[in-house]
Amino acid sequence: MNCISLLTDFGLKDGNVGVMKGVIWGIAPSVQISDLSHDIAPQDILEAAFVLGRAALYFPAGTIHLVVVDPGVGTDRRAIAARIGPYQFVGPDNGVVTRLVRHAVDKKWSREVVHLDKPQYWLPEVSHVFHGRDIFAPVAAHLARGVPLKDVGTPMEDPVLLALPEPTKSKGVIFGEVIYIDHFGSLITNIKSSDIQDGKAVSVEIKGENVNGLANTFGQQPAGSLIALFSSTGDLILSVVNGSASQRLGGRIGDQVKVTHSR
Amino acid sequence: MNCISLLTDFGLKDGNVGVMKGVIWGIAPSVQISDLSHDIAPQDILEAAFVLGRAALYFPAGTIHLVVVDPGVGTDRRAIAARIGPYQFVGPDNGVVTRLVRHAVDKKWSREVVHLDKPQYWLPEVSHVFHGRDIFAPVAAHLARGVPLKDVGTPMEDPVLLALPEPTKSKGVIFGEVIYIDHFGSLITNIKSSDIQDGKAVSVEIKGENVNGLANTFGQQPAGSLIALFSSTGDLILSVVNGSASQRLGGRIGDQVKVTHSR
Amino acid sequence: MNCISLLTDFGLKDGNVGVMKGVIWGIAPSVQISDLSHDIAPQDILEAAFVLGRAALYFPAGTIHLVVVDPGVGTDRRAIAARIGPYQFVGPDNGVVTRLVRHAVDKKWSREVVHLDKPQYWLPEVSHVFHGRDIFAPVAAHLARGVPLKDVGTPMEDPVLLALPEPTKSKGVIFGEVIYIDHFGSLITNIKSSDIQDGKAVSVEIKGENVNGLANTFGQQPAGSLIALFSSTGDLILSVVNGSASQRLGGRIGDQVKVTHSR
Repeated sequence: MNCISLLTDFGLKDGNVGVMKGVIWGIAPSVQISDLSHDIAPQDILEAAFVLGRAALYFPAGTIHLVVVDPGVGTDRRAIAARIGPYQFVGPDNGVVTRLVRHAVDKKWSREVVHLDKPQYWLPEVSHVFHGRDIFAPVAAHLARGVPLKDVGTPMEDPVLLALPEPTKSKGVIFGEVIYIDHFGSLITNIKSSDIQDGKAVSVEIKGENVNGLANTFGQQPAGSLIALFSSTGDLILSVVNGSASQRLGGRIGDQVKVTHSR
Repeated sequence: MNCISLLTDFGLKDGNVGVMKGVIWGIAPSVQISDLSHDIAPQDILEAAFVLGRAALYFPAGTIHLVVVDPGVGTDRRAIAARIGPYQFVGPDNGVVTRLVRHAVDKKWSREVVHLDKPQYWLPEVSHVFHGRDIFAPVAAHLARGVPLKDVGTPMEDPVLLALPEPTKSKGVIFGEVIYIDHFGSLITNIKSSDIQDGKAVSVEIKGENVNGLANTFGQQPAGSLIALFSSTGDLILSVVNGSASQRLGGRIGDQVKVTHSR
Repeated sequence: MNCISLLTDFGLKDGNVGVMKGVIWGIAPSVQISDLSHDIAPQDILEAAFVLGRAALYFPAGTIHLVVVDPGVGTDRRAIAARIGPYQFVGPDNGVVTRLVRHAVDKKWSREVVHLDKPQYWLPEVSHVFHGRDIFAPVAAHLARGVPLKDVGTPMEDPVLLALPEPTKSKGVIFGEVIYIDHFGSLITNIKSSDIQDGKAVSVEIKGENVNGLANTFGQQPAGSLIALFSSTGDLILSVVNGSASQRLGGRIGDQVKVTHSR
């Protein structure tokens, strides 16, 4: 039995995440379900795409990534499922799959996408406002049981993909931006370790502060130091040792970051 | 193996939810456990009853709904278990089961209730302050393994049921109130879609604001619009598209709502 | 298959807890995973040790307690695994295991500790900043599958153990302190029921307030009363019935508590 990862903006208070698990286990009783996050900011598709993108490939082959960040629920936005290399995806066709598709491009994985239009794989009654429960959860559960992708929908070619902010590079200088702020207050940028030649950064500038050199990890510098380093997924991040870079710098999504590096 | 849903006011910080799962898996190692919510306001039995009521029937037949919102723990309030149609319930006898019992009445389901008085199904040592761990979790686990309800307690007739606020209806007008505020800031009322004849609402009035017409879903109106619509469980709710009705209206539990509808 | 308990300071927003489960299920697909807490204050090893200590023994024999509160990740702090009586532990060698080791001493359990130095049980690529994902989760999963402890590391004798604040006792008086504040705002002290002779406390003094006598449970006193009682794990705690002792007293970790008791 494959496992399912579950990513929503539902929070944990209302019981809606639990209800989706109930629906899934009614169809696929022994499937493992990993809560990826339910604290995506309401309707924030870009944030969901980021959290999915950096987590997805650590799951076992066959995992179904089920995402319900769905401001367009009940409108004419499509519901989709996809096979993306060894993974599957189920969710709204609003671009949350963008970074997972990028991995597929990088890795030259084949992929196929279907429009979910087979009500026999849904709950018998479908509300206008909770397709997570009524369509996406049951489809993910059927896929976990081994129903082929082509059975749950009709092939389509053009899922919505979001434009992501890209760093701009010139000789020895990269301009990027903050794209996520994590639980520890680290500012995660869109600059990757592969963007920096030889991995030798001379300095990182953000909000008027300068960080010289890249650390390998947090504990190398005294508590309270502002450091730049690569995250465990290869993103350039700004952190304060045993503290919060977000708090110290007043950092926000979209803040500009300048890296000057040797060539 | 049946699954267990778990609903408490414990929060997630202290480890007590995890401990209950440890106790359950010590007795029923392969049972699936769905966290319904652990963010019920401390001691708020009405809120727990609401969250359970709207979630319970989406779980597979045989599910054991385990609820520990238990301000009377260690006093003479009874501990109970019940079969309610195809579901089971385990928890304190303080009315948290009220809305699940209402479903049973609506659906003409039979039900049986027992007073948990068989210590052989509890942990060997029972504290005065954590029956969730010492009594309710082990009983739920034994039920999940297939122990019959009548073995874990003595039949009783009169579980505590709460008086719920009911809407008042006259010709073309319904007065109701806000009974829950969800993660997205939607105000959920005690008016059901079945209360409104033909589903044609002329207007919904709350805190001096008037909403004309009912929307089908969120994405039909521009961001920031205050809309009225039916939730996925058929409750009349007030929402702000991509925003928070609670914040915009300063909404609170108990706020009055007036619906004027065509006849 | 044994189960795994998971305790971190990661929060639930970023997906890192979900990723660890993905890694575990890639190796041990049917293992049950109980989230003990992910809301440990960032880098707070003492808090993690407390939450683990009071939860660990309620899990079934064979459970692997996986703890990732790891400010020293990527430095020369060791990664360890241990067998402690019927339980196993996997995590950084920074003292988070301290209270679990104390249980072992109390119960005269044997124990063995290994230094995790066998990369064949890790992910193929190990980052400098997320050993939870790259080392600890895979090792815990291999242990859950039955790999012997001695295979995943090299025996060692001297895991880091923290000095814990101890109460001081003289004739009829005990001085202790607040060591944890729980979700309900109860102040948990380092005074145990076994510290108080005959369980007869005359009075408990904290921050200028005096509580006479010990309650058995919350519901015995009117709402709003400040009470002293023993927690479900035998710790002396201060609570406000249906309220928050932390809020009422402005309580903090380290606050002094004085118990005067009969002899």
